[in-house]
Amino acid sequence: MSDILKNDLFLRAANGEVTERPPVWLMRQAGRILPQYRALRAKLSGFKELVETPELACEVTIQPIDELEVDAAIIFSDILVIPESMGLPYEMIPGKGPFFPDTVKNAADIAKLVEGQPAADELQYVYDAVKLTKQELNNRVPLIGFAGAPFTIFCYMIEGSGSKTFSKAKKLMYQEPVLAHQLLEKITNTTIAYLKGKVRAGADLIQLFDSWAGVLNNNTFRTFSLPYLQKIATALSAEVPVTLFAKGAWHSLPEIAASDCNVVGLDWTTDVKWARQQVGAKQVVQGNLDPCALYSDADSLKATTIQMLKDFGPHHICNLGHGVYPDTPLDNVKVFVDTVKAFKYDDIAATI
Amino acid sequence: MSDILKNDLFLRAANGEVTERPPVWLMRQAGRILPQYRALRAKLSGFKELVETPELACEVTIQPIDELEVDAAIIFSDILVIPESMGLPYEMIPGKGPFFPDTVKNAADIAKLVEGQPAADELQYVYDAVKLTKQELNNRVPLIGFAGAPFTIFCYMIEGSGSKTFSKAKKLMYQEPVLAHQLLEKITNTTIAYLKGKVRAGADLIQLFDSWAGVLNNNTFRTFSLPYLQKIATALSAEVPVTLFAKGAWHSLPEIAASDCNVVGLDWTTDVKWARQQVGAKQVVQGNLDPCALYSDADSLKATTIQMLKDFGPHHICNLGHGVYPDTPLDNVKVFVDTVKAFKYDDIAATI
Repeated sequence: MSDILKNDLFLRAANGEVTERPPVWLMRQAGRILPQYRALRAKLSGFKELVETPELACEVTIQPIDELEVDAAIIFSDILVIPESMGLPYEMIPGKGPFFPDTVKNAADIAKLVEGQPAADELQYVYDAVKLTKQELNNRVPLIGFAGAPFTIFCYMIEGSGSKTFSKAKKLMYQEPVLAHQLLEKITNTTIAYLKGKVRAGADLIQLFDSWAGVLNNNTFRTFSLPYLQKIATALSAEVPVTLFAKGAWHSLPEIAASDCNVVGLDWTTDVKWARQQVGAKQVVQGNLDPCALYSDADSLKATTIQMLKDFGPHHICNLGHGVYPDTPLDNVKVFVDTVKAFKYDDIAATI
Repeated sequence: MSDILKNDLFLRAANGEVTERPPVWLMRQAGRILPQYRALRAKLSGFKELVETPELACEVTIQPIDELEVDAAIIFSDILVIPESMGLPYEMIPGKGPFFPDTVKNAADIAKLVEGQPAADELQYVYDAVKLTKQELNNRVPLIGFAGAPFTIFCYMIEGSGSKTFSKAKKLMYQEPVLAHQLLEKITNTTIAYLKGKVRAGADLIQLFDSWAGVLNNNTFRTFSLPYLQKIATALSAEVPVTLFAKGAWHSLPEIAASDCNVVGLDWTTDVKWARQQVGAKQVVQGNLDPCALYSDADSLKATTIQMLKDFGPHHICNLGHGVYPDTPLDNVKVFVDTVKAFKYDDIAATI
């Protein structure tokens, strides 16, 4: 579909082209930073109504395109639709976060999970939201589909909620590695079927979020997370560009880059020049401003952003290194986006 | 005092000697992993009673020496006694963690904080606990005194509780860097006075915990955390060995090693061989087994521990890479400790 997109900057960059400037979007751009999101959200019964109603998901997905004029939309959804499709429903508790009344505790719990296409078929409301959003976007910008990484979903399925250590989930890895891999395999199969469904519905790119990779070290990451990220990247990248964002997996950037992914996501703790050394000048990377830099004054924010763009050089998709925080001043979000949009790689070349 | 210690292995290793085996202790060894701790704790009104009553703090400090026969004791206390001494009392809410009814919000709040010696003088109960514990330990093993790193204390004083992002604390760094440094300076002065008091009371070594360093990147860590860690290390290391443990500051290990500290603490996400390259073969390091490795079976745990000891080589103080988790089987804690105590560097040399 990229040939008919009015703004295909993101797709060109993700495919490895040197673009005139980096494309820019923000993780969590469809959310509480926007007054129009907060207004809509206040009228609803809860978060899941938004996720499960295609017309509403479409509306909030497009809000940041109208308000911020970023270079990509990301379908409004949640990574936890996958465990729900496999048989573990989640609740979103205001002020607390996700909660699973049932969790995976043993082999029997893993055996009874639905997986693969039958699980993915439960998520028709997501495919409908993608289809509708593609239609409403009218090719203004590409649409990103996403999923949680298998390890992150595994954490939630065992722990049942967020955790500082995810020690219950890691306990299964250490005590019953065979069972842990069985569960990860089931999540992976479901995620592949789900993401293929999103691509069929119209998603132009895919991003995987390994939000809890940071509780692993290089050995456990390469054993319990990376192989499954690779499998999904291989299955999807023949169809659309794939971004792998493993937060906290600084120790494995070359290994992530060596997978079939197109783009390596970087969190805000990763030094730009160091990251470039790890993955090479031609690897497309995404990130990675500290979301808290958007609290600073406009001049500082602008200077920090430009320095980051220069340090990354081409083959860069500009973003924060984490989802934008809900209390970020909207004006500063606009300073960030507009600074990137006014930047030209030619200007750096001229000053060298 | 080291000349009269019956077991001075830890002090010798911390001072850079090549010891016959690495000393071993566990962060949070005085705590819920021990049945005798849980029995005592059940009789008390709350966590703070334990911290503030020298006889009780002494008792739980010595429990792991009796039960596990580790090579060091660490005084039972909390890093949050420092903000309390400066005028911000804390509560420990069961199942939730620390909570500060008052927080630092602006310049006036910072101006009215007590600091330095007058604040440190509020903590006589800690010095009394150290004195009593030294007496009761009867020189069996050295006693570690500790404090939170200024950046970590700064986080709690602004945020008022734990946080996934510490974005309020980081907001002050980005919006009002001068004020942020003023607050960090006050915490640092208080911490130095406090740790000198602990050393006068008998502490043989000092460890600083920068529990939230991981929310910073290399730039912000080197601006808002490291200079204060350095200042404390310089002030204390003339008297006793100092360990700096900045969890998540993988990007700044050479800079930490270059400070006046004696020992660099490593969290469990840091690869041993990579860490050795960063800090050099002769830098004393402490860590760093994944606390979740203690959930595995005894044979795997033993093998993993021995591999780690070989990979580190001498100039290593053996520990986990994080506090031991409360539900860790006591038998496995003993397997870990006993494996280290049975290890000899000579045996590796012989197999090379």
